[in-house]
Amino acid sequence: MSKETATAHAPRTTEELQAAYARVRGRTLALAAPLSAEDACVQSMPEASPTKWHLAHTTWFFEQFLLGRDAGYEPVNRDWHFLFNSYYQSVGPMHARPHRGLLTRPSLDEVLRYRAIVDERMAALIADHDDAETVERVTLGLHHEQQHQELILTDIKHLLSCNPLEPAYRDTGPSARSAAVALDFIPGAEGIHDIGHGGDGFAFDCETPRHRTLLHPHALANRLVTNAEFREFIADGGYETPTLWLSEGWETVQARGWRHPLYWSEDLASEFTLAGRRDLDPNAPVVHVSYFEADAFAHWAGMRLPAEAEWECAAAGQPVAGNLLYEGALHPRAATPGDGLLQLWGDVWEWTASPYVSYPGYKPLPGALGEYNGKFMCGQFVLRGGSVATPADHIRASYRNFFAPADRWQFKGLRLARDL
Amino acid sequence: MSKETATAHAPRTTEELQAAYARVRGRTLALAAPLSAEDACVQSMPEASPTKWHLAHTTWFFEQFLLGRDAGYEPVNRDWHFLFNSYYQSVGPMHARPHRGLLTRPSLDEVLRYRAIVDERMAALIADHDDAETVERVTLGLHHEQQHQELILTDIKHLLSCNPLEPAYRDTGPSARSAAVALDFIPGAEGIHDIGHGGDGFAFDCETPRHRTLLHPHALANRLVTNAEFREFIADGGYETPTLWLSEGWETVQARGWRHPLYWSEDLASEFTLAGRRDLDPNAPVVHVSYFEADAFAHWAGMRLPAEAEWECAAAGQPVAGNLLYEGALHPRAATPGDGLLQLWGDVWEWTASPYVSYPGYKPLPGALGEYNGKFMCGQFVLRGGSVATPADHIRASYRNFFAPADRWQFKGLRLARDL
Amino acid sequence: MSKETATAHAPRTTEELQAAYARVRGRTLALAAPLSAEDACVQSMPEASPTKWHLAHTTWFFEQFLLGRDAGYEPVNRDWHFLFNSYYQSVGPMHARPHRGLLTRPSLDEVLRYRAIVDERMAALIADHDDAETVERVTLGLHHEQQHQELILTDIKHLLSCNPLEPAYRDTGPSARSAAVALDFIPGAEGIHDIGHGGDGFAFDCETPRHRTLLHPHALANRLVTNAEFREFIADGGYETPTLWLSEGWETVQARGWRHPLYWSEDLASEFTLAGRRDLDPNAPVVHVSYFEADAFAHWAGMRLPAEAEWECAAAGQPVAGNLLYEGALHPRAATPGDGLLQLWGDVWEWTASPYVSYPGYKPLPGALGEYNGKFMCGQFVLRGGSVATPADHIRASYRNFFAPADRWQFKGLRLARDL
Amino acid sequence: MSKETATAHAPRTTEELQAAYARVRGRTLALAAPLSAEDACVQSMPEASPTKWHLAHTTWFFEQFLLGRDAGYEPVNRDWHFLFNSYYQSVGPMHARPHRGLLTRPSLDEVLRYRAIVDERMAALIADHDDAETVERVTLGLHHEQQHQELILTDIKHLLSCNPLEPAYRDTGPSARSAAVALDFIPGAEGIHDIGHGGDGFAFDCETPRHRTLLHPHALANRLVTNAEFREFIADGGYETPTLWLSEGWETVQARGWRHPLYWSEDLASEFTLAGRRDLDPNAPVVHVSYFEADAFAHWAGMRLPAEAEWECAAAGQPVAGNLLYEGALHPRAATPGDGLLQLWGDVWEWTASPYVSYPGYKPLPGALGEYNGKFMCGQFVLRGGSVATPADHIRASYRNFFAPADRWQFKGLRLARDL
Repeated sequence: MSKETATAHAPRTTEELQAAYARVRGRTLALAAPLSAEDACVQSMPEASPTKWHLAHTTWFFEQFLLGRDAGYEPVNRDWHFLFNSYYQSVGPMHARPHRGLLTRPSLDEVLRYRAIVDERMAALIADHDDAETVERVTLGLHHEQQHQELILTDIKHLLSCNPLEPAYRDTGPSARSAAVALDFIPGAEGIHDIGHGGDGFAFDCETPRHRTLLHPHALANRLVTNAEFREFIADGGYETPTLWLSEGWETVQARGWRHPLYWSEDLASEFTLAGRRDLDPNAPVVHVSYFEADAFAHWAGMRLPAEAEWECAAAGQPVAGNLLYEGALHPRAATPGDGLLQLWGDVWEWTASPYVSYPGYKPLPGALGEYNGKFMCGQFVLRGGSVATPADHIRASYRNFFAPADRWQFKGLRLARDL
Repeated sequence: MSKETATAHAPRTTEELQAAYARVRGRTLALAAPLSAEDACVQSMPEASPTKWHLAHTTWFFEQFLLGRDAGYEPVNRDWHFLFNSYYQSVGPMHARPHRGLLTRPSLDEVLRYRAIVDERMAALIADHDDAETVERVTLGLHHEQQHQELILTDIKHLLSCNPLEPAYRDTGPSARSAAVALDFIPGAEGIHDIGHGGDGFAFDCETPRHRTLLHPHALANRLVTNAEFREFIADGGYETPTLWLSEGWETVQARGWRHPLYWSEDLASEFTLAGRRDLDPNAPVVHVSYFEADAFAHWAGMRLPAEAEWECAAAGQPVAGNLLYEGALHPRAATPGDGLLQLWGDVWEWTASPYVSYPGYKPLPGALGEYNGKFMCGQFVLRGGSVATPADHIRASYRNFFAPADRWQFKGLRLARDL
Repeated sequence: MSKETATAHAPRTTEELQAAYARVRGRTLALAAPLSAEDACVQSMPEASPTKWHLAHTTWFFEQFLLGRDAGYEPVNRDWHFLFNSYYQSVGPMHARPHRGLLTRPSLDEVLRYRAIVDERMAALIADHDDAETVERVTLGLHHEQQHQELILTDIKHLLSCNPLEPAYRDTGPSARSAAVALDFIPGAEGIHDIGHGGDGFAFDCETPRHRTLLHPHALANRLVTNAEFREFIADGGYETPTLWLSEGWETVQARGWRHPLYWSEDLASEFTLAGRRDLDPNAPVVHVSYFEADAFAHWAGMRLPAEAEWECAAAGQPVAGNLLYEGALHPRAATPGDGLLQLWGDVWEWTASPYVSYPGYKPLPGALGEYNGKFMCGQFVLRGGSVATPADHIRASYRNFFAPADRWQFKGLRLARDL
Repeated sequence: MSKETATAHAPRTTEELQAAYARVRGRTLALAAPLSAEDACVQSMPEASPTKWHLAHTTWFFEQFLLGRDAGYEPVNRDWHFLFNSYYQSVGPMHARPHRGLLTRPSLDEVLRYRAIVDERMAALIADHDDAETVERVTLGLHHEQQHQELILTDIKHLLSCNPLEPAYRDTGPSARSAAVALDFIPGAEGIHDIGHGGDGFAFDCETPRHRTLLHPHALANRLVTNAEFREFIADGGYETPTLWLSEGWETVQARGWRHPLYWSEDLASEFTLAGRRDLDPNAPVVHVSYFEADAFAHWAGMRLPAEAEWECAAAGQPVAGNLLYEGALHPRAATPGDGLLQLWGDVWEWTASPYVSYPGYKPLPGALGEYNGKFMCGQFVLRGGSVATPADHIRASYRNFFAPADRWQFKGLRLARDL
């Protein structure tokens, strides 16, 4: 759900860091550009946050962890510290998450001015400091901001979907015609392999340390599960068959009345997208399914979900390219025919069968930044590979996303796996 | 909570009606003027509505019940019917009340344009129709709009109070020095008297028919209960003494942790007002108390709350004047010394001991407008006299407001009564 | 729901009081006789209590308010005071109501021994004391016990209904054939009349003082509403028509999925009774309906419910006779043809349109016994006339029962009324 | 929470099977012997079941899966199938779990007769059938029954703890004086090792298949964490320090107001046990802690919980002996000084850091018996080693118990581990 601190070893030149800062911060603004002040203010559910809050919180992060290291630093507005802290208990109390949508003041305009002021101060700070700590923290702040870029899109999609008028976030043009790609299984590595982050680049601390893991014989599907396949599951009574489901999944299906993925129409013909309501593309990956639905589908298909280590070993060394955020599609697309594992990057986050737990020898960072990475290691499952809302320079083979098994509002789908 | 339909016998000239229409509709806009689009969009709790919704709903009322009587009428936007109906089940389904705050579209600007278009069409309609039905419905629509003027203020007050920054709706200047007025009891009428609306002017149907009632010997306090008196109740352990409370009231106090009226500070020294946080004036009426608190206070004082018939008989014939909406104070004030019953009109709605039930022989209006007046006649108590948020030309001796006993966000206080 | 204290002016001889004590206490035991220790221990919902608790609590009442007046009194078991106090806050803390069913100890046998010991001590106390206070308190204790006799039956009915085996409390033999009695309306008194308790006999304090009331022209139905009539309401879409219902009633119908009275089968052909499942007698009174259902039915019929003063003036002077507890039917029966108002006493409690509020000049008793009569005067409606579970010597014309409008597990039905 | 099906390869002679059947079934009765019919009927929370239900359900299991294989079999009572099925969706609908406590009928006596009849029929069946399927299913039924023996004790402990009288289940005599055993860490195996069940004996299917796992360098504490150590954690502000807790754990602590393990007194001096309230033995293992508390304690101590594979490799080959059910202590005891890993078996289930997931290549049994082993593999953590309520012939090194992280009413504690 939330994952913010990191271990950072990404040396750059001051110029590179300035450019990265300007680029990432600018992209956040571009994502907010299609939204009115009203769109940016409202919170549609406790798990989601308003765009305005995302804009302010990511800015607060730089104030708190970079500018604020100077004891004489004068915050842009002292009262905002309480409002825009997310969950760093060690740096003070915070505004309750479900109430973020009640903050009609400061206005969107004030928050945008806040960003501008902090950006100016940050430019000066980066120019003046080239120590490793500064570089690491700026790098971390930018990766943190990229996570919030994804959340801006998923949270605004949820908000707009609550409006009976079903307004679009942005028109993305007509969908291309698509063709089906045959399902195929590709054997994975087995035996002892290394996973986790170990190199020089940036990674969050939960990706470390790099360590040995033991893979059992298995194969992964060459592409993601499609809407057409998921409709077969529904037509076969998938949502009415308790024996396909985890016990908690079945309770959830009953309690919430689920009969299809989030955002699908009752007739299973269309789905709400960031471009408004669209016909379902049968060949596009199913998206906005919970872990429970992904797992039930895999059972129904006589398969299973991949383990996160299986996925990582398969992805290691594959160039990051696909339907990611800066492509602009904002919605998953049918696979393009080809060899090997397709759609590894982007489109949808892929649910794995792995609970989110610490790696052997895991150590959080010292201080507030290291506070609480492990604190979400309970009751969540790992997802891999990024989605249409993930920046391409944010994702990597070792990247571990995680969500509670009932959550559906992120761009989540699945790839099948099986034992050999 | 909601009370919208009425029986209307208020003949006016076309010019008078035009002028009234323009005046009332203009005042609604003036109330919304200090608010940003963000302020006007957010809903702070299920019982409250966003200002934008109030602006649109009151406009929809004229479209639905006046313009829409012409079978060929083309609505400004067909989709908005669903969004801006409040609870008229007989005219179609409606958007769920707790989700009103999710409507970031249409924007505030669009809603203001909607108002302008409907106002123009209504001007034409009033000019062309002088039949009794039209006059009655326009009159009803204006009284309906005045009720929402009050709700705009109470709902926005609640929203702003949820913001840790405690922003003001409008600065109302410094408070005047006040002096205490001695508490006195004035005997009321007894025996058989008539209450309820019976004349020519406008009234809601729940005020009718005028009918005989039997008054027992009693006296009413000359003024409202003050903050100083309520602080005595608190200091005497009022909120910790179960024997003072109704059983359901005591449960509510425990469940919600009430220790003072809504908007008071923990130290009982200040309160949040529409002008921001202000010191409590000891001589001003206590405000934002529930029925439970009003009843417990009266028990503690060895008194009781007035019956609604006692209040109405006392108020009948008294000119409507006091701290009402167009005075602009937006907050209750200490009584001005004088004879007789002070503060009858305005300042705070006065809780009575009377459950809200139908008068003998009550008949709702036919059709959708008559739908559901009686439907709130369960579990609510009557309040009388208007508040700082009530337009002076909206209140009268027979006016019955009603709310659930735990509600506190309206401007509500109390006047003591006792048996003779 | 609960109503325990009283004003008592019932002079009796010591012998009469001894006899009454033995008779009432013995009848409670007889009611518990068909139940196993398991039946008597379990609590089926927070509003209901186990039979064992009723047996102990009514005994505690005599210990607390009679035996305990002697400062040297040694309770049978000190620990039980906490367990068996119901809601007398002024005599100490109490076990939470929803947890009464967790008390597997003391056992039923121990509680029966507790009753026997207290009965013996009470016999001595009554023999030794003939002061008015003692007589009044014993009388009150016996009326209190009779109220719990009714609750024993309604609570055990609910518990047994929760068992898929649908066991009977007691076989009551086959039902008699019944015939329909034509519906007729009988004009009631009008003008000023006295209601409330005023004579020498026992009454609860909420029935006092006797006072003048004003009746408007009206008529009452000669009999109760029948199952056949209620089935017509259902067949006509009564449970699907929001305009027939109070707003809170409609919400309740939706939230709880009500489609018929409590204990009816889905096919509307049978109902669960204390004798097990039985075919519905079309001519018998409908029973186990909430205020909401009674009110919606009356609306559908174009009528209304009686005011409590109308009912009391009609019943005043009518001899108490009917299908009451000691008749043993344990279920309402079709009216026997006859003149005047039929079924006034027994069969079902009749919902009135009157909220439960204090009478003018009402004063609670001093001390713990007077604690909290008025504390239930909020959100409840008055019922009149007693039911199949009410002892004949417990009911009277001035008797005011009261329940929340959504409650259905008591024996409650309705009689129609209309304005003249 | 529930885990019932198994893979069974436990060849025995008919005589051995008869003897095992008689022994296990008899022990269940012996556990129920101290309880009254009332004790055995009541359900204290949705997660717990009444003893009577356990007695009936374990009997139903033999009817359903052994006797019922004969198509002509006539059940003892057809209606009870619905009541005593637990969660086997494929053999029909079932009574809702939270309502098990409402079944006052059939009575405890009837259920005991039901057991006797089925035992007689089972004796005949075992005598007549020596095929592998019968032997496996009987063996499974007996292991199933042993799981419910543990639940009988933990569920009745919870029920009795809800009674303010704090009655004892059984007096177990005075506690022995104990001495502290110094904490020591013993290095575990590393590299590739086999875990899981692989031999001939009985095991549940979730223990299979035996498979390779990779152990990282680590050490395990020589004994369980003690009450004295846990009191240090509390004294050091453990329950008030959010940074020690998992995010969901901290929310749980706040929401439930936890300040100490379940059953401890507020002054941390005593705890409720099956023998009533007893002083805390500082050297005895802490018991009735959630995963959240175990994990927070380990963080506070600078350590971690063991992985389940670490525990299993350490326990493999160690003889099963310790404070287990048939010892009769019914409460954990201080460790006895000695070499190596103490208290591996019995006393308390040991929380591991391992989420409960399937082993590589896991396959559920076919049919209803195999239904749903994996269905609990979400959101739960594995516990190892058995407790004071676990039969000694039921536990083994590969045994995987599992519970949700907030559950505390089983006998659960912890052993520390650390990386090397």
